[in-house]
Amino acid sequence: MVQIPKPPAPSRTAQRPVPTSADVARLAGVSRATVSYVLNNTAAVRISEPTRRRVHEAAKELGYVPHAAARSLRAGHRRMVLMPAPAVPAGPLYSAFIYELQWALHRLDYTVVQYGGVGLAGDEAARAWAELRPVAVLVPGTGLGPEGVALLRRSGARAVVTLGPDAVEGAHALLMDHESVGHCAGAHLYARGRRRIGVVVPEEGGLDVFSRPRLAGVRRALHGTAATVTELPLAYTEESAARLAARWGDLGLDAAFAYNDEYAMLLMRALQDEGVAVPADTAVIGADDLLLGRLLRPRLSTVRIELPSGRDLAELVDRAVRDPGGEPERHKVLGASVVQRDST
Amino acid sequence: MVQIPKPPAPSRTAQRPVPTSADVARLAGVSRATVSYVLNNTAAVRISEPTRRRVHEAAKELGYVPHAAARSLRAGHRRMVLMPAPAVPAGPLYSAFIYELQWALHRLDYTVVQYGGVGLAGDEAARAWAELRPVAVLVPGTGLGPEGVALLRRSGARAVVTLGPDAVEGAHALLMDHESVGHCAGAHLYARGRRRIGVVVPEEGGLDVFSRPRLAGVRRALHGTAATVTELPLAYTEESAARLAARWGDLGLDAAFAYNDEYAMLLMRALQDEGVAVPADTAVIGADDLLLGRLLRPRLSTVRIELPSGRDLAELVDRAVRDPGGEPERHKVLGASVVQRDST
Repeated sequence: MVQIPKPPAPSRTAQRPVPTSADVARLAGVSRATVSYVLNNTAAVRISEPTRRRVHEAAKELGYVPHAAARSLRAGHRRMVLMPAPAVPAGPLYSAFIYELQWALHRLDYTVVQYGGVGLAGDEAARAWAELRPVAVLVPGTGLGPEGVALLRRSGARAVVTLGPDAVEGAHALLMDHESVGHCAGAHLYARGRRRIGVVVPEEGGLDVFSRPRLAGVRRALHGTAATVTELPLAYTEESAARLAARWGDLGLDAAFAYNDEYAMLLMRALQDEGVAVPADTAVIGADDLLLGRLLRPRLSTVRIELPSGRDLAELVDRAVRDPGGEPERHKVLGASVVQRDST
Repeated sequence: MVQIPKPPAPSRTAQRPVPTSADVARLAGVSRATVSYVLNNTAAVRISEPTRRRVHEAAKELGYVPHAAARSLRAGHRRMVLMPAPAVPAGPLYSAFIYELQWALHRLDYTVVQYGGVGLAGDEAARAWAELRPVAVLVPGTGLGPEGVALLRRSGARAVVTLGPDAVEGAHALLMDHESVGHCAGAHLYARGRRRIGVVVPEEGGLDVFSRPRLAGVRRALHGTAATVTELPLAYTEESAARLAARWGDLGLDAAFAYNDEYAMLLMRALQDEGVAVPADTAVIGADDLLLGRLLRPRLSTVRIELPSGRDLAELVDRAVRDPGGEPERHKVLGASVVQRDST
């Protein structure tokens, strides 16, 4: 790590005071109410053009910024869509999704604010979000319950949308069922004649919300068959992968579903270094359909996951904001399908 | 894309009104001032325990959430550190950095709010950020000028910290010089005997802020030598890489610095598929030192980039917030060093 040295002792210089609307009023020679009418573009009050100009010039000279909080006291942040920031470093698929969503909401004149998610959970989190008075809240993952939703609605959020495995009362739900990802992978490996199937479960914290249902999906796909499912904890390091590959012979597996393409790449390399032939000895399949999977040899089979389009999601948010009393919508939005290449 | 179908017509149900502090006062049988004193924990006013309890119970029953905006009217959001969200999908190195920073600030009792950065630039962006009255603003990249910094300071931000190539007047600066990344790569390739060096410049928008200085750094490293530098535009797709590899013979290059490890992986695979031997015919070096580079064959040489630790940065923010009048700090925080493996 690059160190940032600490300077010796704090100086005692004072900060310039923050200009207020009273300062603007004084400089422009008008009342505070007039300043407020002009800067908030209140249509109901007639103010002459020269006065408007004087107020704007005074505000500019002083560097006065109208306070969003003052406006939000009346109306809430009418264009702010709040999302908790991801509680784990975002992967490439999710980063691209958030980016696209941000653009789509921007085109509809909303601004996405991502609220630092670490160390906050459940209703405590909902309370913190509510304090910012967003017009809509978009919550990926699990953890928000009906009480949290109600609290957000009472605080003025016109829409709460969850993205997760289950619907929550009072909120719109985009149902993302990661079980289907595992089910796809399991069914594919079975159809390819594999019967002793390992499932990589990342040891990195915070991924359980995805890895557990994926594992359950593999089990469901193989339920009632003679195939076995073996859980394989794996950290995202070469050492962990080498340790797993070293006991591959003892495990007696003929296939692995590796959670996603990055873990698949890690596992496949370790198996190859150990002399395990892919796919002859062991088939390997990932998920996410990242470009890197196509660059590997053998080319990596994968489960392509289709997230909802940012544009569709932005339109749902906008619909919900315009009709806050409407019946909550429920949509299944996670598409999962196998892309077979050369590793299975 | 998974489509979200649109429901037929909006219903006309009304939303429950948002409870106010007046409602709480009515239910608790106290004044609004008392509600405010109790819920804001004002130490200056003595209020009996039973009254306190009555106010809290009424607030809970009604689901009243004290409005952060009301508090921020007086004080600003005293623990909110605002960052613009990245204007491009964040890569793995940056995602991990933001995540670590978020934790470090959380431990110091700050909350990071990432403000949607798309479609906003320069002083317009600064004005939008200022409206949320954060206590500190952390701005990666370029674009914020001295006027934007002054505006943020006047709006109450006690600290503005930039992360970029240049310092901005009035702001603390963590100087991240991506030229040094290119310089490292260029000097290394030259030392390995390479004289006709290609530099991959991603065609993806928004990466110029990193790719331009990296290219300049390679040129600087080779300045005054007989070596040539060729700019190689490349999109992050297999097709683009295949097209580049197909004309590799005509280009007559014996080395490539591929912007980062992901582009290096893409280029190296395309070169190998075209029959170009790495490193015998062409040496390839990436940057970022991602795990995937160690999984390639040949193992990928790379420029390791050291970002400042999230903890150091969080401490700088905290120091600056406690001493808003202090002299702006300037630190060079980008470390760059070559990790040689088998591809150069």
